[in-house]
Amino acid sequence: MSSNTADLYNEYVVLMQKAADISNAAAVLEWDQETYMPAKGAENRGRQLATLASHAHDILTSQRLGELLDELAERIDMSDTQQANVRLSRKDYEKNRKLPSSFVEAISRQTSECFNAWIEARRKNNYSIFAPSLTKMIALKQEQAKLYGYDGHPYDALLDDYEPGATVAMLDPVFAKIREQMPPLLARIKEGHQVSNDCFHKEYPKQVQWDFSEQVLRKMGYDFEAGRQDYAEHPFTTSFSNSDVRITTRVDEHNYASLLWSTIHEGGHALYEQGLQGDQYGLPLGAAASLGIHESQSRLWENCVGCGLNSWLYFFPVLQSYFPEQLKGVSVTDFFKAMNRVEPSLIRTEADEVTYHFHVMIRYEIEKGLMENKIDPKDLPTVWNSMYDKYLGITPPDDVRGILQDVHWSHGSFGYFPTYSLGSFYAAQFFAKAHEEITDLDEQMARGQFEPLLVWLRDRIHQYGRRYTSEELCEKVTGKKLDTEYFMQYISDKYAAVYG
Amino acid sequence: MSSNTADLYNEYVVLMQKAADISNAAAVLEWDQETYMPAKGAENRGRQLATLASHAHDILTSQRLGELLDELAERIDMSDTQQANVRLSRKDYEKNRKLPSSFVEAISRQTSECFNAWIEARRKNNYSIFAPSLTKMIALKQEQAKLYGYDGHPYDALLDDYEPGATVAMLDPVFAKIREQMPPLLARIKEGHQVSNDCFHKEYPKQVQWDFSEQVLRKMGYDFEAGRQDYAEHPFTTSFSNSDVRITTRVDEHNYASLLWSTIHEGGHALYEQGLQGDQYGLPLGAAASLGIHESQSRLWENCVGCGLNSWLYFFPVLQSYFPEQLKGVSVTDFFKAMNRVEPSLIRTEADEVTYHFHVMIRYEIEKGLMENKIDPKDLPTVWNSMYDKYLGITPPDDVRGILQDVHWSHGSFGYFPTYSLGSFYAAQFFAKAHEEITDLDEQMARGQFEPLLVWLRDRIHQYGRRYTSEELCEKVTGKKLDTEYFMQYISDKYAAVYG
Repeated sequence: MSSNTADLYNEYVVLMQKAADISNAAAVLEWDQETYMPAKGAENRGRQLATLASHAHDILTSQRLGELLDELAERIDMSDTQQANVRLSRKDYEKNRKLPSSFVEAISRQTSECFNAWIEARRKNNYSIFAPSLTKMIALKQEQAKLYGYDGHPYDALLDDYEPGATVAMLDPVFAKIREQMPPLLARIKEGHQVSNDCFHKEYPKQVQWDFSEQVLRKMGYDFEAGRQDYAEHPFTTSFSNSDVRITTRVDEHNYASLLWSTIHEGGHALYEQGLQGDQYGLPLGAAASLGIHESQSRLWENCVGCGLNSWLYFFPVLQSYFPEQLKGVSVTDFFKAMNRVEPSLIRTEADEVTYHFHVMIRYEIEKGLMENKIDPKDLPTVWNSMYDKYLGITPPDDVRGILQDVHWSHGSFGYFPTYSLGSFYAAQFFAKAHEEITDLDEQMARGQFEPLLVWLRDRIHQYGRRYTSEELCEKVTGKKLDTEYFMQYISDKYAAVYG
Repeated sequence: MSSNTADLYNEYVVLMQKAADISNAAAVLEWDQETYMPAKGAENRGRQLATLASHAHDILTSQRLGELLDELAERIDMSDTQQANVRLSRKDYEKNRKLPSSFVEAISRQTSECFNAWIEARRKNNYSIFAPSLTKMIALKQEQAKLYGYDGHPYDALLDDYEPGATVAMLDPVFAKIREQMPPLLARIKEGHQVSNDCFHKEYPKQVQWDFSEQVLRKMGYDFEAGRQDYAEHPFTTSFSNSDVRITTRVDEHNYASLLWSTIHEGGHALYEQGLQGDQYGLPLGAAASLGIHESQSRLWENCVGCGLNSWLYFFPVLQSYFPEQLKGVSVTDFFKAMNRVEPSLIRTEADEVTYHFHVMIRYEIEKGLMENKIDPKDLPTVWNSMYDKYLGITPPDDVRGILQDVHWSHGSFGYFPTYSLGSFYAAQFFAKAHEEITDLDEQMARGQFEPLLVWLRDRIHQYGRRYTSEELCEKVTGKKLDTEYFMQYISDKYAAVYG
């Protein structure tokens, strides 16, 4: 007797949600690892995470799931949503089956070791402490690319984990454009009078910064009943379901720019996660479309909104009430210019919107080189420093401000960085469309009304989960494929306002 | 070809440690649930915990584990440690097999629901919010007792989960003794002049209390590199391995007694967990002997050490430096008397060492009654209040200070409470032995030297894990079976000093 479709679909959902429970449990352990875990807990945490990863993988590659998906693919008595879930799950299943459980466990274990080595290396400001773990991680990622298989570049296989469909062939021209179009823009900016950001470099008590950042998050529409903000070495957003989405950040008492925009950035990610469909928990339609789209949400809030003059017409007087001494005699225009000051700098997460993409491009080139063995991991500080010299005209004085600044490689995330640039480009295109469809958007923001924008994002983007690919979604929302001209227009306009 | 013993044992260890990884991951999620989780996270957290519990159970009841244990039980080429692990794991395996996976999942899910209902009921000070969840939980525990099976009382089946070997037949006489011996002692105390504890009821800033409590933990030998202290609704200790053992506590600005001794109590539990053998992770010899023995460690530190005059000869001047205003004109003797003031009171965790055992006895009688359906869960507040009137001569003015005060039933922990009294009795017996074997123990404590005591506990108790049962361990350490006379002697001596 053949089972009815509803029963089969339900069995598929139960399996998927069990795997999600395990993965979300792992996410809690990772969150704890980066926020509250005592130092000696690291070793056993590593083995616990490896066990969870391998168990989730076992479910997601189980024979039974494969049978269910094959059977369901033949059924037509399913809703659009159900069909989309089955279609996407089949694609994932085929990909997951390519990685043996032992490999998944090995990479999870290596991630914990590598992360701890990175923490230690940062503490001692010494890349050589990180190098052996990283070298092992790179070998594992090369193996992963082989296991997945690829037509073009080995790096393509890894890119697909973060941005389905992205390839070296697609990204090379994008980054070539950056190398071509950014330097003239940078040159024009340099011709203008450099703006001051001295107002950021006073003493800003940590707790007051924190309190203001929470007020901004609330204004953005972040639900603190379904999330929280904590301190961590590296800012990140993590989600255990759409009703528990947490962000972390770091704070610098002597640099106001360190906390707020990273909070807004993570807040943008978190709004996306909180806006996913709760009843699609564990299923493709309950998950984000891609990291590029994810980053479009964080960038839209961080840059388009959070570094736009309109929002600050509302927020600046509020901020002044938190820091009356520090901001005495500073005008909203001064403050707007300060936050948009362009200057080649060492740290990606603190870079301006122009030079930012050089930081990404450097990492992209390095990752390609590592994957095809053209760069030896032990030479990374030298390679890194020479590229910073070439593209940004500056040299990191030490490893912490150079090769050790990002957590990603310690997490085994190779192929992640390019999504940062894609996210900026999607963000500019979405924000332009939002302006078309919400005609008084600028005035709303100047009055501190961000809800209509959030509602628009929820309606146009968040609610769909993975129903559409990044490309499809971009076209559905804006009527056009991704076009970097929106971004070039956006920054040209902005820097005309800042630098005249 | 039959496998060699080392390979079989190794396969057994791998399975056990995988199950431990999953259970420890669940413990992290539970810790988070009670410390940092946002409100809306509760529902999905419940399903995540249920999935983890059921998966750990699947491993621990897997056919393969059973085969390995049967095979290993025949082998003689194993060390004592290996043989003990296999013997204890076989006993656990047989017991675990009695609970179907669906039942384990149901009870885990009910635990989350019940815990959240308890939190909500406490917030609204209304038992009726808790009653429906608790009623379902009690039905599940009755089912659990049936699944385990029992010879005497259904409650015996549950007791064995916390104190292997304990039965109603063994505990009834113990609590009868309390009902017999405590009232005369209480009467003698009442004849003396009541001591004052006014010095506790001033304003003690939370953070300063917290800082001092951490200093006390350090002095006890608690390793903050392998643990941490956080705020929670209900104080508890949890362990994710011997290198990550955390405690929680609550703090009351207007009652100094609320935080410190609960920190010391949890610290005693934590020292036991930190003292277990790390290389026995996931195996019986890497786990605590029983809850009674666990409680002996917390009670020994909280009462014998933490409420003893000798420790305060060292700690009191330190405490005075934290609270010079509040403790002005208070002598160490006043303070010692204040902390040992005997007075029937409403809250178990704040009770003195004499009336404490009435609190436990009441819960013990109620749990027995619930398990044999002699008490209806909906009548619990009435039953509770009338027993408090009968044994302590006081009536709770509301549910929060009555039936809702303990977290245990919301966790499904029925059979846990009696271990609190057993723990006190073991503690007195161990502490007497420690005095015999560390001849200048009192002088050491008066000098702030607690390491020799910790070393003694590690050597005599902690290192063994579950190698010995509570009874065997008691006899090995003290040369005698558990004898409540040690406890009666200990409190008679103490209250002679306090009340003259």
